[in-house]
Amino acid sequence: MTPPSATLSAVDPRTGATLADYAETPVGDVARLVAAAVDAAADPALADPELRVEALRGAARALREAGDELRATCEAESGLPAGRVAGELERTCVQLELFAGVVAAGDHLEAIIDPADPDARPVPRPDVRRMLVPLGPVVVFGASNFPLAFGVAGGDTASALAAGCPVIAKGHPSQPGTNEIVAGCLARAAEHAGLPAGAFAAVQGAAQELGEALVDAEGVAAVGFTGSTRAGRALFDRAARRPVPIPVHAEMGSVNPAVLTRAALARRADAIREGLLTAVTFASGQLCTKPGVVFVPDGPEGDAFAWAAVTALADAEPAVMLNERLHHGFAASIEQLRGRPGVSLLTEGAGPGDAGFSHTPAVLTVAAGDLAARPDVREECFGPAVLLARYADDRELLAALASFEGQLSASVFAESPADDALVDELSAVLTARVGRLVFDAYPTGVAVTWAMQHGGPYPATTAAGHTSVGLTATRRFMRPVCWQDAPQHVLPPPLRDENPTGIWRRVDGTPSQAPLGG
Amino acid sequence: MTPPSATLSAVDPRTGATLADYAETPVGDVARLVAAAVDAAADPALADPELRVEALRGAARALREAGDELRATCEAESGLPAGRVAGELERTCVQLELFAGVVAAGDHLEAIIDPADPDARPVPRPDVRRMLVPLGPVVVFGASNFPLAFGVAGGDTASALAAGCPVIAKGHPSQPGTNEIVAGCLARAAEHAGLPAGAFAAVQGAAQELGEALVDAEGVAAVGFTGSTRAGRALFDRAARRPVPIPVHAEMGSVNPAVLTRAALARRADAIREGLLTAVTFASGQLCTKPGVVFVPDGPEGDAFAWAAVTALADAEPAVMLNERLHHGFAASIEQLRGRPGVSLLTEGAGPGDAGFSHTPAVLTVAAGDLAARPDVREECFGPAVLLARYADDRELLAALASFEGQLSASVFAESPADDALVDELSAVLTARVGRLVFDAYPTGVAVTWAMQHGGPYPATTAAGHTSVGLTATRRFMRPVCWQDAPQHVLPPPLRDENPTGIWRRVDGTPSQAPLGG
Repeated sequence: MTPPSATLSAVDPRTGATLADYAETPVGDVARLVAAAVDAAADPALADPELRVEALRGAARALREAGDELRATCEAESGLPAGRVAGELERTCVQLELFAGVVAAGDHLEAIIDPADPDARPVPRPDVRRMLVPLGPVVVFGASNFPLAFGVAGGDTASALAAGCPVIAKGHPSQPGTNEIVAGCLARAAEHAGLPAGAFAAVQGAAQELGEALVDAEGVAAVGFTGSTRAGRALFDRAARRPVPIPVHAEMGSVNPAVLTRAALARRADAIREGLLTAVTFASGQLCTKPGVVFVPDGPEGDAFAWAAVTALADAEPAVMLNERLHHGFAASIEQLRGRPGVSLLTEGAGPGDAGFSHTPAVLTVAAGDLAARPDVREECFGPAVLLARYADDRELLAALASFEGQLSASVFAESPADDALVDELSAVLTARVGRLVFDAYPTGVAVTWAMQHGGPYPATTAAGHTSVGLTATRRFMRPVCWQDAPQHVLPPPLRDENPTGIWRRVDGTPSQAPLGG
Repeated sequence: MTPPSATLSAVDPRTGATLADYAETPVGDVARLVAAAVDAAADPALADPELRVEALRGAARALREAGDELRATCEAESGLPAGRVAGELERTCVQLELFAGVVAAGDHLEAIIDPADPDARPVPRPDVRRMLVPLGPVVVFGASNFPLAFGVAGGDTASALAAGCPVIAKGHPSQPGTNEIVAGCLARAAEHAGLPAGAFAAVQGAAQELGEALVDAEGVAAVGFTGSTRAGRALFDRAARRPVPIPVHAEMGSVNPAVLTRAALARRADAIREGLLTAVTFASGQLCTKPGVVFVPDGPEGDAFAWAAVTALADAEPAVMLNERLHHGFAASIEQLRGRPGVSLLTEGAGPGDAGFSHTPAVLTVAAGDLAARPDVREECFGPAVLLARYADDRELLAALASFEGQLSASVFAESPADDALVDELSAVLTARVGRLVFDAYPTGVAVTWAMQHGGPYPATTAAGHTSVGLTATRRFMRPVCWQDAPQHVLPPPLRDENPTGIWRRVDGTPSQAPLGG
């Protein structure tokens, strides 16, 4: 256990220099914060969709207004390049606005109405109406690699607030200044919109006890987390041991296997390689959707592809890692991986760069058969590294893919019609293991849309039935309630006959926006 | 731990006589059964909706054809009255057919299509299409109190098969003959429809090791359970400790508080009392939706209601319990409950009847304030018993209701407009605690419809986000997968442009049955 400390230091990973100190939230504050969140959960103001829409839109406005200071702070604390931080800030704002739109449309409610049917068999059917209601206070643990989009006002917070849940957000301790600015924007927007005081709170801290106290607190109803498998599983285990267990939606990263067919390489090796170099080095490879293992065919096309990738990455600038822990962790991962039987490191060095927490990128290689045989070769290496898995034929390729555990995503680069039969086989083996299957692109971009699925079977997440990105992410923090033969005034407005805001409802089995009995 | 035994004895609870012996499934068979289920999960035949529709409909036909023998066996093994068994069989068949309809319509897939948008901000949007896919092999633990509707071919099995998951069903060991007949019907229907051999299997056993081996088996992806809090929580804990944790959907029963307002009693005390007597004695009160605690106002109307209820139940026939364990458990529960401070047993006896495992019904009473103060007074008493909680005023009523943990349901008997303001307050406090809120009826009937919610916050279930009854029950056994920029031939048919079977899909945010680009 890490002993609690009084302050958090922000460090510039580009130089290793300390930027500023921030007060840690005392563990003793948790009870008060959770009590306020429990009060907020029962407050009709938080149940009012108009107020939540205004709070989410106001938060986006406030974050854009804080732009210059926020971006500068985030760049300094994360070492992420300016373009990436600017894009992530805009994505974070758009995400808040998209969830506001979901709330305004009532699409998160999954409203269902089954009118009474006195002729139903085996017994007459009552009037039953159902919608999703918020679970209650949600604790969010932000990720270091997306200080904004998966941070204090990131996707977990936005979707939980959209669902109607109070949120206590713990930003990543690597970026305390960023967390503080974002928390201020969101808190002011929530207050200005008229949400109750406990609807949103932020905490800061690196001490394990703080996170544990939040997960243990009796009033907390669910947890959202983005980070490592070790930390995510620890939270999951802790939440499962509570007297009242609660769901932990932990997104824990992935190797994201990519498949390059011989035909695809023959036709467009350069474009595929350029894409790979970007995917592996962008944000220093610190993306949960980075293609960590790339299947490259044996033979001259594959050799040429591997050689060109090694050459390009050997010349790449050292890449800044987000913090000292990841910096040491990356070097240790590469050392471990290169020591596994059959694995070779193809780039010289992959050691630390000159300044701060930076590394040169690494390319490793292994035979697909060796990768299939050893789980420790399929583990995520978080940072600018890629493992090229060389395969002899389709049979070996499919067998190696079948060895993978749950993944967030996989990608396939293939040619039609030559590869059509293989692609069908690849799809079968991959969809059984992933949340998202991407064609002719690397999975690093994750669009915030209705259909997006950012999740997958364990160990990619602890809750394969849900997504942490995209407009169905609210579903994680809601539960169904039905009302049987209820008077109109008791029903929540979305379930009343007149359908006052014209939301989509499943009425007697069929989607409809119409009022009832009209 | 219960030592494994070679045979299960069916016992007629009406007499205590042994009916027949059945072989227990050896724990050593689990690995083979799970391996077959894993194979079936990857078999395209199980993914074919038409074959699953035929299997579900065929199972309903086979169960109806087995009617005479099945009903007789079930009556003898459960002690449930003939009318109840016949109704439950019909409900089981209708349920299988309703899920077949869901599969035929593609409504369980929650299909979503976001067409590409090159103008999207902050980055262009790819084509993303998502639907739910089956989780994999599901283990179902049947309940003793619904040997058919929550048994080997009950709601968990029907919804898991509808979802496309192989099922290994363990019927309740109290009714091995019933389990055997039902398993035969379902197995033959699955085979006749062309489902793979491992798509359905049934096991029999009372040994704890058998259930544990099923939950531990590596290939199992989810668990459905209906039964006691103790057993459900043990399975949940075990599944959470696996190297790869899996979801446990345990429905663990409930007290189901019912509220009678003073105005409702003044107007229709007789009808409310008649309903209560039926709800408490039907199936010997062995329903997870039995109203276990009924809030009755202080004063002459409440006294008269309580007196009439006691008089009627004191004259009731001894009720047959499902098995010896529940028989002893019920007597012990009553003894414990009557010993709590402030609780009185109003009926003479509540002791065992003459023959077999039967009891006379029991009425107990407590002050609402005492109930609010003691969790052990709010515990479920499984059998023909009801606790009348007397309240002085609305404040005391609401405070007592706020003391309850998660419940499957609650019911409210009130008069409009006199009680309108109170009913709004009751709804707020109850919807925060229950899955279903029923007006002017007891919750014992659970209609199988789209909007039905049979679930609730812990300890009513281990998965408040889902339901075990109703047409959304398939959602428990599915997870989303999305395809990004996939060629048409790779996409599952429900996500292809032409929408071959005309299912409802959310296209660019809006429900539609239309093909794309038409």
